[in-house]
Amino acid sequence: MNERANAITPEGIDTGTAYGRPAPTYQRELVEVGPGTPMGELLRRYWHPVGLCGDATDTPRKLRVLGEDLILFRDGQGRPGLLYPHCAHRGTSLYYGKVDERGIRCCYHGWLFDVQGHCLEQPCEPEGGRSRGRRRQPWYPVQERYGLIWAYLGPPEKKPVLPRYECLEVLDEGEFLEADDSSIGGGGPQVIPCNWLQHYENLVDPFHVVILHGSFSGTQFVGEMAVMPEVTWETHEIGVRTVSMRSLPDGRRLRRISEAGLPTLRVIPSPRLGRFGRVESLGWVLPIDDHRFRIYVVGRVREAGELSRMRTRMNGKLWEEMSEEEHRLYPNDVEAMVGQGVIPRHSEEHLVTSDRGIVMLRRLLQEQLQAVAEGRDPAGVGFDPAAPPVVFSAGNWLADSEGMGIS
Amino acid sequence: MNERANAITPEGIDTGTAYGRPAPTYQRELVEVGPGTPMGELLRRYWHPVGLCGDATDTPRKLRVLGEDLILFRDGQGRPGLLYPHCAHRGTSLYYGKVDERGIRCCYHGWLFDVQGHCLEQPCEPEGGRSRGRRRQPWYPVQERYGLIWAYLGPPEKKPVLPRYECLEVLDEGEFLEADDSSIGGGGPQVIPCNWLQHYENLVDPFHVVILHGSFSGTQFVGEMAVMPEVTWETHEIGVRTVSMRSLPDGRRLRRISEAGLPTLRVIPSPRLGRFGRVESLGWVLPIDDHRFRIYVVGRVREAGELSRMRTRMNGKLWEEMSEEEHRLYPNDVEAMVGQGVIPRHSEEHLVTSDRGIVMLRRLLQEQLQAVAEGRDPAGVGFDPAAPPVVFSAGNWLADSEGMGIS
Amino acid sequence: MNERANAITPEGIDTGTAYGRPAPTYQRELVEVGPGTPMGELLRRYWHPVGLCGDATDTPRKLRVLGEDLILFRDGQGRPGLLYPHCAHRGTSLYYGKVDERGIRCCYHGWLFDVQGHCLEQPCEPEGGRSRGRRRQPWYPVQERYGLIWAYLGPPEKKPVLPRYECLEVLDEGEFLEADDSSIGGGGPQVIPCNWLQHYENLVDPFHVVILHGSFSGTQFVGEMAVMPEVTWETHEIGVRTVSMRSLPDGRRLRRISEAGLPTLRVIPSPRLGRFGRVESLGWVLPIDDHRFRIYVVGRVREAGELSRMRTRMNGKLWEEMSEEEHRLYPNDVEAMVGQGVIPRHSEEHLVTSDRGIVMLRRLLQEQLQAVAEGRDPAGVGFDPAAPPVVFSAGNWLADSEGMGIS
Repeated sequence: MNERANAITPEGIDTGTAYGRPAPTYQRELVEVGPGTPMGELLRRYWHPVGLCGDATDTPRKLRVLGEDLILFRDGQGRPGLLYPHCAHRGTSLYYGKVDERGIRCCYHGWLFDVQGHCLEQPCEPEGGRSRGRRRQPWYPVQERYGLIWAYLGPPEKKPVLPRYECLEVLDEGEFLEADDSSIGGGGPQVIPCNWLQHYENLVDPFHVVILHGSFSGTQFVGEMAVMPEVTWETHEIGVRTVSMRSLPDGRRLRRISEAGLPTLRVIPSPRLGRFGRVESLGWVLPIDDHRFRIYVVGRVREAGELSRMRTRMNGKLWEEMSEEEHRLYPNDVEAMVGQGVIPRHSEEHLVTSDRGIVMLRRLLQEQLQAVAEGRDPAGVGFDPAAPPVVFSAGNWLADSEGMGIS
Repeated sequence: MNERANAITPEGIDTGTAYGRPAPTYQRELVEVGPGTPMGELLRRYWHPVGLCGDATDTPRKLRVLGEDLILFRDGQGRPGLLYPHCAHRGTSLYYGKVDERGIRCCYHGWLFDVQGHCLEQPCEPEGGRSRGRRRQPWYPVQERYGLIWAYLGPPEKKPVLPRYECLEVLDEGEFLEADDSSIGGGGPQVIPCNWLQHYENLVDPFHVVILHGSFSGTQFVGEMAVMPEVTWETHEIGVRTVSMRSLPDGRRLRRISEAGLPTLRVIPSPRLGRFGRVESLGWVLPIDDHRFRIYVVGRVREAGELSRMRTRMNGKLWEEMSEEEHRLYPNDVEAMVGQGVIPRHSEEHLVTSDRGIVMLRRLLQEQLQAVAEGRDPAGVGFDPAAPPVVFSAGNWLADSEGMGIS
Repeated sequence: MNERANAITPEGIDTGTAYGRPAPTYQRELVEVGPGTPMGELLRRYWHPVGLCGDATDTPRKLRVLGEDLILFRDGQGRPGLLYPHCAHRGTSLYYGKVDERGIRCCYHGWLFDVQGHCLEQPCEPEGGRSRGRRRQPWYPVQERYGLIWAYLGPPEKKPVLPRYECLEVLDEGEFLEADDSSIGGGGPQVIPCNWLQHYENLVDPFHVVILHGSFSGTQFVGEMAVMPEVTWETHEIGVRTVSMRSLPDGRRLRRISEAGLPTLRVIPSPRLGRFGRVESLGWVLPIDDHRFRIYVVGRVREAGELSRMRTRMNGKLWEEMSEEEHRLYPNDVEAMVGQGVIPRHSEEHLVTSDRGIVMLRRLLQEQLQAVAEGRDPAGVGFDPAAPPVVFSAGNWLADSEGMGIS
């Protein structure tokens, strides 16, 4: 029993204790993504990546997207299909189905559905099912682009064009596109167990880079990123742009622009500063449901596997190779985000000047919620197949102290 | 990035997509089995098997039946007892009790209860508990027959006679009875994680035999069963009878009758066609609770272990020996049933002519629910101990093409 | 198929069956401990041990106390701190924080808090956060005494003095204090998965000692304890006292006094009777939440590790070394308590004369609930730092048959 064990805190009425603290609440309209919720309906007005092209094969694959369970497959003609999992007949999961040239066949009574849910065969029925034409397996339209499978889970009459992006359309000499589904940039496992908004907001928060990635866990990226930036934010039509200026020790200035684009787009140039210039990759934060998300990334690379080598390592270890104690000692985005809780505690936040980007991003989302509520189209939704690719201004640039561009 | 990755689905307003689909619902009165629910009260009007005779020993055993937790044991006089688990005194589980000649004794304060819940001793009370005669541990009556322990969980004044069955009472030369608790016919583990109704309805669905068991996963039974049958159904007083006629390649005709009997009876002749003639075994689908069931089977056999050898194997492997990937590749009843969900999605079904048996079975159940609601006895409940055994018409028979019986 | 398998229970209307039994209920005001509940508010009027002194280090530690998640640490000046886990800024868990001389720093944006939650730094804000003085991380006051960290989770203006106890203040020759967090006396693991009240009531139940500890699982303590005692109970201002008299085979009489003190105190002399005289240790039942508790113990010992050697062993095995089957065969307090359910079933109890202590203890708790509801202070709460230590009368004493004290 040492001295300390008998020390007594001086008396007096304590202030600021946790006693009587109200239970935390969160802004449901920003957080919840299921069918019929405000954000769920807003997100359903856009195309979302739901897998790599290679995920659609003759082996049915279970997906969960925006709180909905689905089955992804590819028929023998090469068409990807995304169906409601429970067979329109008696509800057995098509996960146990067999894929053939024309579609997927339920294991229970053999109903065969094509990629648009048309019922082609009911083999236990007279004449293969006289009314089979009236049956439809619920389905969602899909497209393939940039190595990803894209799905549209929204109202059919509002289906927009799948956008193209300049930074993935215009390739420099020696570059090619690569797609990755390992949730690069989440700092953790492929499926991250918290609400999507926590990561989406992280995109307009350039200051955590200095603390979390720049000093707390050692230098996760490069030394330059640990310099405290001067930051300005701008809301533009389809996103929030963050401009971070850093004065480097050698007198040069680093100008870095990153963006959060509607609905879930991450437009962040490499924090490793390997190259300067326009952004190299795009990421999409996919809400699996209210409590989990994952990230798909497509980037211009010069070597196969370049993207996956961007996953953060601590002491040479990937997140899943670290112990629980190492996760505590060297926290990364995933610890910071999941540490906020499975869903955020908005009522307990105290936003400050360095959180201005978050305020602006929430406002932009609120405006889109309002647009949908009023029957208007949210920003970033377009219907013209001939529309030019979307251009972002994101990138890293160096200038000398006089502001002359040098890269 | 291949060609396909840039293909775009032709535009146009999609029809039949999953967007806006209402949340699925189910017919609660057919599905839920807990105390006080319509089906729960209907099922409680019958005796149910709750274990093998050998399950009742001096080691207390936890059971769950119709959503109720219970403790099964056998006292030193050989009497099986089925008690509410929490001691009438202060609620400690009798699972930790000690069984003696007269009953089971709670570990906490030593109260001793007999198989009918009478409190025989309160050793910490003066005179062993002057008011112990007023205490009663809640219990249920049990009987033993056909190698099974049967329990009646219903209103005491309505307790029926435990029925006898002709096919288990009249044994052919060399036959004896065997009981099995491994859920034979469920195609999976002993405890199957979905609602009991999904299996009960499977009994009047002879078509899935052709698809699921006859072709989808290879030939699970015998080649003859893969021939598409002509089927008729009949509702009789205590069940729904399915008559399946098959024209075999050699010109013979196979006539197969199976039945679903009230309340949970499976009367299905062997799909392996090893013998012809009347049904060899009976099965009882026991709802453990709303989300799990198991199956007890009693059959006439000629060799010990004959029943358990009937469990389905795929590539020589029992279900629990197969990998998850093998379960997906070679689905069986359990995958088809559990794939429907933990509880069914009645609102999303589309029943067709080959589902007529299911419609008839649900109607029969609805009629019994109505009878109980009106204070009448449901079908199959009898009170005459001298009643003759129940006779079923189930079996497999061969005939030549002229319809002359040849077996 | 043996004879028994065909035996039939005699007919007749059964009585006392479990059919129609209402769902169990419990006295919520005695059981629930979360913020705002009656018992939760009563318990929050007292100091509770939440860890060993050694638990507070520069490694943040997760605690759960009375249903609240908290972070315990010790700053570089040696001061223990107990904070709400989610950072006042954007909610990231301080579990991932770094402890320094002045406090703990959040990993996300580097806010630094001292042990009273004052925000000392906001490194991403201009001038380190001009308004940081207005931010406060919710915290609770802590003290260290008897080798334990004590926390006060109640209304600040009602914060009482942390009591001293005579039996831990006045040490006999050769004695020193030892603290233990292994839930000694719970008979099981460190965290016991049921409501705290089940153990607190166990303290005024001397009869279970004879059954559960004295015969059911063999002799867990010493032979003397298996003698059925004569018991009287008394309620005094801050607890319920149990006096158990035992006539030993050699003619001596064992007088044993144990107490349950407000709010969660266990004042039970050693059931191993190694020494006679006043009680050697105190225990505190800490409700982790409604469904789990643990026990902290402080005792006067003569050898280091003496307390932890008091943990019950069966056949030489600690609880966690025993198999599930051994737990069933040799139940201990934990099996008796957890066997009552995660929360008790008060509506199903049948209390008898040997439960009088439980009735008195519940009444004492109800009176304190009433006091708090009426704005009065509950018993055992004091505000005078100069108050003398609390004296208990608990202990084991031997007398010869004439009642002459011999130890």
